[in-house]
Amino acid sequence: MQSRIKVLRYGHRELRDFRVTTHCALVSRALGAEEIIIQGKEDEKIINNIKQINQNFGSEFKIRFIKNWKPEIKKLKKENWKLIHLTMYGESITEKIEEIKKEEKIIILIGSQKVEREVYEKADFNVAVTNQPHSEIASLAITLNEIYEGKKLNEQFIGAKKIIIPQTKGKKIIEKK
Amino acid sequence: MQSRIKVLRYGHRELRDFRVTTHCALVSRALGAEEIIIQGKEDEKIINNIKQINQNFGSEFKIRFIKNWKPEIKKLKKENWKLIHLTMYGESITEKIEEIKKEEKIIILIGSQKVEREVYEKADFNVAVTNQPHSEIASLAITLNEIYEGKKLNEQFIGAKKIIIPQTKGKKIIEKK
Repeated sequence: MQSRIKVLRYGHRELRDFRVTTHCALVSRALGAEEIIIQGKEDEKIINNIKQINQNFGSEFKIRFIKNWKPEIKKLKKENWKLIHLTMYGESITEKIEEIKKEEKIIILIGSQKVEREVYEKADFNVAVTNQPHSEIASLAITLNEIYEGKKLNEQFIGAKKIIIPQTKGKKIIEKK
Repeated sequence: MQSRIKVLRYGHRELRDFRVTTHCALVSRALGAEEIIIQGKEDEKIINNIKQINQNFGSEFKIRFIKNWKPEIKKLKKENWKLIHLTMYGESITEKIEEIKKEEKIIILIGSQKVEREVYEKADFNVAVTNQPHSEIASLAITLNEIYEGKKLNEQFIGAKKIIIPQTKGKKIIEKK
């Protein structure tokens, strides 16, 4: 069984978080999540970036903005999605990964701003990718890669117009018409 | 043997790249690199952020800015450091990781702007963390984690004043006086 994964980006701030949230979305897509849900003011530029990348490089990765994380999480939890909150204060991912991998449906919540107490309470797992301050992009990447056991590192995406052919030196892209 | 790792951040642009470069530095520190070398105009705010985090959370992680990557790489290569360039156009990390792990001294080069042809030529390995566009922060994190086989995820840093105690819910920090 391969877990389905959605990513919830908590507390996206317009403009200020543009690049970091874009990285989060691209990492989610590249490493096998099916959707990113962004809590914050809708930003068409981010949506269009991702759609453009889907068109060029394949996949049906989805992106949407929501105003409030709470009703979204409530709804998803009713549908048996488990909430994994990535936080430097949580339990080590190395201890929790086997348990997490067994879940069929996983929401990975990553903060931007300081995260409300309620997120810790609602989470099924509060998980730390090191107990050091670093980057939600990095934590997300490692978590996705661990859940999928590295399998997404060589995934071919369906519907790609541009396909990159790995090279020792330089670049090779095949473009389908 | 545990490889020594330095990270070279290529083409940092003042202001525009502030946050992303800060994430790169924090990820390098948290996941076991000994130094980040940033090509770009010196930014005291980034240096001070990292020094502050070293003071609070331990480690002797180093950071410095350089004007030009070429003499730096030339010097390090003379001292037997191997250059790993992370690029979506490269060979899969899953194929190269065993070879890379055998190296004693590794420089991981991550781009920001488009990377000159010469980087591909000078690199001992051009390595892709997926052949999809995503994030240099994510690629760096996965590469460090793979080289160190997850061992840095539970590392205790020497000299920490603040130590985070993993919690199921909530936050616990021990502060040493």
